Amino acid sequence: MSKRPSGREADQMRQVTITRGYTKHAEGSVLVEFGDTKVICTASVEAGVPRFLRGSGQGWITAEYGMLPRATGERMQREASKGKQGGRTLEIQRLIGRSLRAAVDLRSIGENTIHLDCDVIQADGGTRTASITGACVALVDALRVLKKRGSIKKVPAVQMIAAVSVGIYQGEPVLDLDYLEDSAADTDLNVVMTDKGGFIEVQGTAEAAPFSADELNAMLALARQGIEQLFAMQAAALED
Amino acid sequence: MSKRPSGREADQMRQVTITRGYTKHAEGSVLVEFGDTKVICTASVEAGVPRFLRGSGQGWITAEYGMLPRATGERMQREASKGKQGGRTLEIQRLIGRSLRAAVDLRSIGENTIHLDCDVIQADGGTRTASITGACVALVDALRVLKKRGSIKKVPAVQMIAAVSVGIYQGEPVLDLDYLEDSAADTDLNVVMTDKGGFIEVQGTAEAAPFSADELNAMLALARQGIEQLFAMQAAALED
Amino acid sequence: MSKRPSGREADQMRQVTITRGYTKHAEGSVLVEFGDTKVICTASVEAGVPRFLRGSGQGWITAEYGMLPRATGERMQREASKGKQGGRTLEIQRLIGRSLRAAVDLRSIGENTIHLDCDVIQADGGTRTASITGACVALVDALRVLKKRGSIKKVPAVQMIAAVSVGIYQGEPVLDLDYLEDSAADTDLNVVMTDKGGFIEVQGTAEAAPFSADELNAMLALARQGIEQLFAMQAAALED
Amino acid sequence: MSKRPSGREADQMRQVTITRGYTKHAEGSVLVEFGDTKVICTASVEAGVPRFLRGSGQGWITAEYGMLPRATGERMQREASKGKQGGRTLEIQRLIGRSLRAAVDLRSIGENTIHLDCDVIQADGGTRTASITGACVALVDALRVLKKRGSIKKVPAVQMIAAVSVGIYQGEPVLDLDYLEDSAADTDLNVVMTDKGGFIEVQGTAEAAPFSADELNAMLALARQGIEQLFAMQAAALED
Amino acid sequence: MSKRPSGREADQMRQVTITRGYTKHAEGSVLVEFGDTKVICTASVEAGVPRFLRGSGQGWITAEYGMLPRATGERMQREASKGKQGGRTLEIQRLIGRSLRAAVDLRSIGENTIHLDCDVIQADGGTRTASITGACVALVDALRVLKKRGSIKKVPAVQMIAAVSVGIYQGEPVLDLDYLEDSAADTDLNVVMTDKGGFIEVQGTAEAAPFSADELNAMLALARQGIEQLFAMQAAALED
Amino acid sequence: MSKRPSGREADQMRQVTITRGYTKHAEGSVLVEFGDTKVICTASVEAGVPRFLRGSGQGWITAEYGMLPRATGERMQREASKGKQGGRTLEIQRLIGRSLRAAVDLRSIGENTIHLDCDVIQADGGTRTASITGACVALVDALRVLKKRGSIKKVPAVQMIAAVSVGIYQGEPVLDLDYLEDSAADTDLNVVMTDKGGFIEVQGTAEAAPFSADELNAMLALARQGIEQLFAMQAAALED
Repeated sequence: MSKRPSGREADQMRQVTITRGYTKHAEGSVLVEFGDTKVICTASVEAGVPRFLRGSGQGWITAEYGMLPRATGERMQREASKGKQGGRTLEIQRLIGRSLRAAVDLRSIGENTIHLDCDVIQADGGTRTASITGACVALVDALRVLKKRGSIKKVPAVQMIAAVSVGIYQGEPVLDLDYLEDSAADTDLNVVMTDKGGFIEVQGTAEAAPFSADELNAMLALARQGIEQLFAMQAAALED
Repeated sequence: MSKRPSGREADQMRQVTITRGYTKHAEGSVLVEFGDTKVICTASVEAGVPRFLRGSGQGWITAEYGMLPRATGERMQREASKGKQGGRTLEIQRLIGRSLRAAVDLRSIGENTIHLDCDVIQADGGTRTASITGACVALVDALRVLKKRGSIKKVPAVQMIAAVSVGIYQGEPVLDLDYLEDSAADTDLNVVMTDKGGFIEVQGTAEAAPFSADELNAMLALARQGIEQLFAMQAAALED
Repeated sequence: MSKRPSGREADQMRQVTITRGYTKHAEGSVLVEFGDTKVICTASVEAGVPRFLRGSGQGWITAEYGMLPRATGERMQREASKGKQGGRTLEIQRLIGRSLRAAVDLRSIGENTIHLDCDVIQADGGTRTASITGACVALVDALRVLKKRGSIKKVPAVQMIAAVSVGIYQGEPVLDLDYLEDSAADTDLNVVMTDKGGFIEVQGTAEAAPFSADELNAMLALARQGIEQLFAMQAAALED
Repeated sequence: MSKRPSGREADQMRQVTITRGYTKHAEGSVLVEFGDTKVICTASVEAGVPRFLRGSGQGWITAEYGMLPRATGERMQREASKGKQGGRTLEIQRLIGRSLRAAVDLRSIGENTIHLDCDVIQADGGTRTASITGACVALVDALRVLKKRGSIKKVPAVQMIAAVSVGIYQGEPVLDLDYLEDSAADTDLNVVMTDKGGFIEVQGTAEAAPFSADELNAMLALARQGIEQLFAMQAAALED
Repeated sequence: MSKRPSGREADQMRQVTITRGYTKHAEGSVLVEFGDTKVICTASVEAGVPRFLRGSGQGWITAEYGMLPRATGERMQREASKGKQGGRTLEIQRLIGRSLRAAVDLRSIGENTIHLDCDVIQADGGTRTASITGACVALVDALRVLKKRGSIKKVPAVQMIAAVSVGIYQGEPVLDLDYLEDSAADTDLNVVMTDKGGFIEVQGTAEAAPFSADELNAMLALARQGIEQLFAMQAAALED
Repeated sequence: MSKRPSGREADQMRQVTITRGYTKHAEGSVLVEFGDTKVICTASVEAGVPRFLRGSGQGWITAEYGMLPRATGERMQREASKGKQGGRTLEIQRLIGRSLRAAVDLRSIGENTIHLDCDVIQADGGTRTASITGACVALVDALRVLKKRGSIKKVPAVQMIAAVSVGIYQGEPVLDLDYLEDSAADTDLNVVMTDKGGFIEVQGTAEAAPFSADELNAMLALARQGIEQLFAMQAAALED
């Protein structure tokens, strides 16, 4: 019997939905939901690249992450009014950017920049992994638009990227932590993978107690299982 | 025959929808849509007031406004990463705050602060007036929560507040400008009213040509007409 | 009998003086006084325009507004030491800039930028309207200098711009609010007009009670009357 | 025959005027002019002291310095809009604050803070020394107000403070450099003294060539001579 | 035969030295060197805790990280003059803080804050892992000082923390990457462990190619081997 | 008998050491120690000059100054995390930059910028004068590297620059104040000289009591004596 507050099995993900074309202006616009966690992921194409790539013939993919002030249980101060992005925000958006740059060969998109904006409108744990999973779909849509506009000759090969969090909750490895679990977990591990089965990022943090190599492996196995389901959902969404 | 890009009549508003309970954490949470303009308005209650009101027995209502970077046709730089809110943002959030403070007697809500966050997820003109209209509904929901929690003894009397933009487009006064009209209008006028028929704010700006007193009165008449419809929609939403 | 603290009639402006050549470096430099409100308005010409206008052949006019820390009854923190301009400051300088850009056809001044700096050295209500009124005179002086320097072939046609505040004070519409009246007014309305009689900006705010269309029209009539006097003073100052 | 651009003798100061009561709100408000250099110096009294002095029974004197954007020949960017005060500004306001704290025994003013704001409205060299000279007069006025208000029992003993710049111009020591001389001087020395003849600050900078001990002494002698005149003017101004 | 630029074996660490008492003011002050990487780690004790812990009887450990501008091959802009810490800096200092908070039971240090400052004076790869390893020694020294001063009754039990980076370099897992290896590695993994053998943090990033579970396990084995050596060096240093 | 806390004679400097090649990346890297004051001074060469010198054929020398947070007895907040450099920091780095620009004819180094970074790792008074003295040695090393790289044809003539602080301590002029003396001194004077015997900067501040011309001359004599020793040490260090 599950010990999880949500009643889910240890290896059971929350309900995931991926809605394309969520807003109308962006080249790619996705609402991704992992249970009550809801993130708008847009991909915006801009001609040109940052200074360090000018003339290289290579493109760039970068990400920004934000939360609406009341996406959370307690209202948080708006980062724009504080005048800076916090360390957690910067850490997450760097993770999203690195992860998604693994999706395509940057030489295949010409000197274009793709901005991935992940804005959490409701948070219930796992916002960074939902962001990565949704942003990859938005990225594919943006590449298709680049092709349609004639900015690139063909849609480049994309290695799909998805992510999930796993953890040790009350001594047991569990998949896809929600907020209640996350706050009480002994360990929290975020895993980003490619659809070829390789790891892109593995970020594990002992919250209450150190974790062992066996626990790490058990968590990674769960993560792989969850991410496979995510790849199936991404593929289904992209076929619609 | 209408000259409006949208084909609307001069005195015809866009389709307006007001969805309560849009996100789950905030005391009040509304998605307001004026056509393709979509704004999430949340009302968050916080015990305590700013320093200048401490001990006064009086509450406070304040507003913040933001746009997702790709709410617009061209991606705008995220204000949190720029490190400051622009003049337009500050101007709009000051307008929203002033307007909504007219909704209730601040002495009736005790020493509580209500934060109204208006975040535009898709912009097509009229985001400030949609924000005011939606935030008033979120405010009422928050007041009801304050009552349920026992923070106040009864839901105070609320003077409903709604707002619309009007303008002179190709020489003709028109109601509820969308983005295409707004960019080409000779004059743009934002009007905020109470459900008793009084004006709270009237902000008119000549964009291309000065406007006359007659044109101003014609625009105000249109605005009143549109705002009456908005009051009906607010009331209907609050009855659900 | 007047109810005004200053003893003025409802339609009586404070004493207004416009002193040209107030400081020596700027192309235009005006001290404008509306009673005890004193503002130094300088117009500085700079070759070149902001990026979005480069190569357009068109010039630009922009404004900044500030107050000395002790221009007011209580010392305010210096914005330079706070590290940012407040929302009120940004709102006012955006208003001044928009208003003065209506004064000339920007194509007539070549790719030059004219910076209008309005610095309040003593505040007693109406600083933004005094700023607009004084800045227009400084702008004309700067255009004359541009002509003298040969940067432009002729002084372009200028549509003079002036502004005044009106309000409802103790139930009665009054012209040109001073600080005491402004703090206690029911409604405060700032009006910017051209010397052809058109409105450039109309910004009315209900402070204590909503205002009616009739009150709005009464205030606009008073404003027009006051602004006509301001045009006469601007003309007189420019003839000296 | 003088080599100075202004035609002044080597030991001749510019015309200095000190106008008290220049603006109406501040406890002390002085316009000080050293030739074409014009600075508004206000002294504002605030009850309370910074945290490090609370409970000490001692007061505090602090200074801020600013320039209107077009106080100078070329318009400078407004520090409030840049979002920070430059190094030169901070250096000058630290100098003014240190200098004026030598004027009174801080224990004699109770736990009050006196803010000295020195705002340059027109610059022609020597703005920091004019600021110190004018701020000392404003300070005395503020102390008299403190006494009148009953915040202190008697006006404390004040050691008057004045300052002047001297330099080596075309090989010759000269008194009270104006902008033309300052830009071309080999050495620039700012001297702050008390009316008892002691030095408070001596800040000499070799601009084009190192200076010798003899040159330093010659400059100091000139400075003392100029500062004595300033003490006389301060005294005269305070008697009016 | 080794493929490493440094000629080291795959499982060979650089020379590590830990120098206690490196500077004189801090309660703990350590120079830690991993080959050419040199970091000054100080532990500073401050009475009191952040607001969220006040009255809890519990202490706090927090970390900050910086690099001298020319710690690196190319000079980097000083973060203090840029006006903000970059994302990489914030990410690293959050990692150091989280890691070291695992070293002691925060309830055992009373309401004191220990600031761990890790300042890189020369960088050659692995600065974050060297920082963690050195900061733990500085922390122990600071705890001993707290005991000596009588702020705590006994030095609390410390779980030593050390960290090392491992990676896949030219297809082979290697221990303790230097800068040359780090820049060319396929994968980079930072591992933080306790002296009981548990993991505190595992942060792996695919730089050029995704990594497999087998590669991850091989890297973790190397890391454990290196970290055991680090625990021995920490112990030796603490015995001196 | 000396009254100095350190037991030094009035004209006795602390032990000074100058260590070249202290870190490996910078073109010049010096650890300078004045007793317990320890500063790392690096000189970094960068091709190109600031905008105001482009095309002039002339180079630029600029300085930045910082302190590690626990270089001092009490930990100071890190300026990078505060988001700005304090007034003291800016004042000192402007002094260092001005002083070192006197060392060489800027036309002799081509359009290169030399950044002098002075980072205090341990503070015990006199950090700014130690910084200047050490930075001059680092500058010479950097010029030699420029020559080796072929960026300049020959190492330009360098006028060596050194600096020391002097003061009035318990009524007596003393050389090279340490922190204990500095905090209790009546007057503090920083003197920067060239090896030809000229003054570059003389900055004297009365801390507790005004100083007389005689005291100033006594301090200058002591300073000259100390600086001569510093020139000898710089020369010895540069010969190694």
